[in-house]
Amino acid sequence: MFESAELGHKISDEAYSRQTKKLRPALLEAQYDLLSCNTFPVIVLVNGVDGAGKGETVNLLNEWLDPRHIRSIAYGPRTEAEQLRPPMWRFWQSLPAKGKIGVLFGNWYAEPINGRVERQLRASKLPAAIERLRRFERLLTDDGALIVKLWFHLSKKGMRKRLHELEDNKLTRWRVTKADWKNFEQYDELAKVSERLLRETSTGDAPWVVIDGSDPNYRAITAAKTLLGAINGRLAEARAQTEEDKRAARRKRTGAADASTEAAPVFEAVDTSLILKELPFKERLSKEKYKTKVVEAQGELAKLTRSPKMNEHSVIVVFEGMDAAGKGGAIRRVTGALDARQYDVVPIAAPTDEERAQPYLWRFWKNVPRLGRMTIFDRSWYGRVLVERVEGFATQAAWTRAYAEINDFEEQLTEAGGIVVKVWLAITKDEQMRRFKEREQTKYKQYKITPDDWRNRKKWDDYIVAGGDMIDRTSTSLAPWHVIEANDKHLARVRVIEAITGRMKAALGK
Amino acid sequence: MFESAELGHKISDEAYSRQTKKLRPALLEAQYDLLSCNTFPVIVLVNGVDGAGKGETVNLLNEWLDPRHIRSIAYGPRTEAEQLRPPMWRFWQSLPAKGKIGVLFGNWYAEPINGRVERQLRASKLPAAIERLRRFERLLTDDGALIVKLWFHLSKKGMRKRLHELEDNKLTRWRVTKADWKNFEQYDELAKVSERLLRETSTGDAPWVVIDGSDPNYRAITAAKTLLGAINGRLAEARAQTEEDKRAARRKRTGAADASTEAAPVFEAVDTSLILKELPFKERLSKEKYKTKVVEAQGELAKLTRSPKMNEHSVIVVFEGMDAAGKGGAIRRVTGALDARQYDVVPIAAPTDEERAQPYLWRFWKNVPRLGRMTIFDRSWYGRVLVERVEGFATQAAWTRAYAEINDFEEQLTEAGGIVVKVWLAITKDEQMRRFKEREQTKYKQYKITPDDWRNRKKWDDYIVAGGDMIDRTSTSLAPWHVIEANDKHLARVRVIEAITGRMKAALGK
Repeated sequence: MFESAELGHKISDEAYSRQTKKLRPALLEAQYDLLSCNTFPVIVLVNGVDGAGKGETVNLLNEWLDPRHIRSIAYGPRTEAEQLRPPMWRFWQSLPAKGKIGVLFGNWYAEPINGRVERQLRASKLPAAIERLRRFERLLTDDGALIVKLWFHLSKKGMRKRLHELEDNKLTRWRVTKADWKNFEQYDELAKVSERLLRETSTGDAPWVVIDGSDPNYRAITAAKTLLGAINGRLAEARAQTEEDKRAARRKRTGAADASTEAAPVFEAVDTSLILKELPFKERLSKEKYKTKVVEAQGELAKLTRSPKMNEHSVIVVFEGMDAAGKGGAIRRVTGALDARQYDVVPIAAPTDEERAQPYLWRFWKNVPRLGRMTIFDRSWYGRVLVERVEGFATQAAWTRAYAEINDFEEQLTEAGGIVVKVWLAITKDEQMRRFKEREQTKYKQYKITPDDWRNRKKWDDYIVAGGDMIDRTSTSLAPWHVIEANDKHLARVRVIEAITGRMKAALGK
Repeated sequence: MFESAELGHKISDEAYSRQTKKLRPALLEAQYDLLSCNTFPVIVLVNGVDGAGKGETVNLLNEWLDPRHIRSIAYGPRTEAEQLRPPMWRFWQSLPAKGKIGVLFGNWYAEPINGRVERQLRASKLPAAIERLRRFERLLTDDGALIVKLWFHLSKKGMRKRLHELEDNKLTRWRVTKADWKNFEQYDELAKVSERLLRETSTGDAPWVVIDGSDPNYRAITAAKTLLGAINGRLAEARAQTEEDKRAARRKRTGAADASTEAAPVFEAVDTSLILKELPFKERLSKEKYKTKVVEAQGELAKLTRSPKMNEHSVIVVFEGMDAAGKGGAIRRVTGALDARQYDVVPIAAPTDEERAQPYLWRFWKNVPRLGRMTIFDRSWYGRVLVERVEGFATQAAWTRAYAEINDFEEQLTEAGGIVVKVWLAITKDEQMRRFKEREQTKYKQYKITPDDWRNRKKWDDYIVAGGDMIDRTSTSLAPWHVIEANDKHLARVRVIEAITGRMKAALGK
């Protein structure tokens, strides 16, 4: 894997200055084209051996490009806010928007590589860590992101030489730290671990490019050409008029034999029994009993959220269901038991400009609670496989792969201590009509009924199908769906609180 | 100030339940009206004596209102990220958007009050601290925010009784901490300091309401009624059709004799000599000399930004000037000297949805760098007094008061270690025409010329006047304007870097 990068590639100063004269305007032009095309972000990952010129090369690219539309981020040890959330949270916070370039140092490869070298990550855990990164990058590229992965390499001899050179120069001596020499001692281990990582994460969509870092001219030209080629390749694809042209451009760029990302399995219902249609809707709870029951349930929820064990967990509650299913009312009964300083309610409406320039999960990652807190989503990431599927806002390929992306997301939440409680409030079509009419007639409820509600109602059956597929494909043991009959509001509210307390009790060991 | 709140107000349980029956739907209705009106945020400040029921009352309000559109935030000791920025930064991060309600505990009153009680804030510093809060709130109310300030009071005897009650009950014992008893010992001092703060920050626009906290029923009803009255009063104002009706509604709400916020002094130029018109445009720098000079200047900048003293400072560079004045090129020469991991460039375009729902300074506060870093703004908060003034996007009252708001903002940056460098790149009208034409003829520069540029050019004289006023009113000793002639790009680029290094040298004591 590193053989070619140890050949001692060199570019003379004269050839360098000749080449940069063409490269610089070409890079700038590509950057402006990227910006005006505005359909995908460029994520540049910079990793490699210390002393191989990572920082210098990036500084150079920053100088050659328009710095207003490129952002370099160096991740260090995780901050407190980052430690209280899943490991990938901080990377989600700083993804470049469509049309922009983000250069990420110490990115998601740093922890698994260093973890293995330092023996903090067990060998048996590495495959899962690698798989997570592959899936994360797959999510980004499926969403259109261009990922350029640069690995700056030095041979062991080369690294020693480089560190000595830096130390011998008075002006650069400060740049060599004890950590660098420690890394040098661990060179063989690093090479072994990183070779494996590079091999297993070099995908057709996001391959690694290993760059010989021994000659500043060579590494700069190679990095610049790689970036330029990747951006222009993707722009050609974006500009292609027909599907066939797009596929051809994609094949050319990735070298894949068949690269039709849009192909997706078609779901065909094999029978007509749908989980959301088969509910009995029979149980009732009298107002009298409700008054006692809801207070009991709230009391238990209050006790659980104030338990010291809560500091090791966060609670993420998701509400989905047809319009007028009673999400708002149920949420108020939940929050009624909580301390106002401990929770957030996040109502999900149409995405803002900023959110539209990012993968659809981005705005939910933004709102992931830290340990000790609860966040309640009034509608959620499931919009992807509900409204976006039914209304055709997402392509079939996009909503089909969303099931796996969502399961990944919830797995990460759970692994970091999150308790994910997903509630589908189920009502009948008749009950919805009754509530719509009631809303139209009650002054302060008129606000709650819009033409959208009537439009959605016409697609009732489509939502039942989409909801059923969603439950089939995303009800996992880590994050099961709670389908709660909600024709009787009182019963539903108690059941919702009980679903949350039930999951919390299991997680907190109560 | 607290006399009335020590009378021992009480509401019987029966009266309480009668009143809440009306209050709750009324509050909910007001909240929905606020949301659909969507023109102002409601900021509820909750302060007062420990044990006076702050938390309980807010929990109750949260239960009564729709929790999806209200958010409660408790500020504790400043986090690391917060300590590396001006004190008000964290409050800017969590202001509620228009249409929403934010309930803030431990808000901007906590530090001055605790600081005085704990003797960490010198008495001589208190007036300035109070003045800062008045100005901050003034900015928010001028922008339309409704600020409701609730002070929950207990007499000294009442506080002791309350703490004992809590301690005697097994279920609530945990809530009384050592800090609470320490606060009790400091009761007299607290009463003295807070009385002064309340007096001096009770303005017509944002008065304090002192609530007797001894009876749970009374304090809940009073807080709810205060909030309801304030929201409905402001909604009536917003709905008023004529200016006269608006003023009458405002007088009714604030009790002010004359409450025409839109009245503003008119600027009349007393002569025709304008600072931006009187520039000589004579100096030149040959390409030869430029090559040496720019490298020298960049070298100095590189050295300064890598100096250990830089950890006590941040650098905020602002670029303004006519279209095609060479901002982009100058920025690239600045960033060329920097480590890509140390700076951000923030290009300012039209505000996003999220930004439009906040005061205009909000998006700049969001991007305030932490100590040790540099942020370069390509256009800036000065848009308020330039494009927004010229194009009439801001009312005269709004852009007139912006000068003081901006000076406050920059003063806060400076006090927290920020070095604010403001650059106006000045070109002549002929030079702009030459550059526009050049851009239209160069392929990769076409991106840079839009119909907007031609439209703005027609208002050249207006921009000269607005720019002159801006410099007159915001060039302060803390943050002076550097007006740099930019017909000669080379000269301008060197001067820009020198302006930054000059200011940095002074601040870093080099």
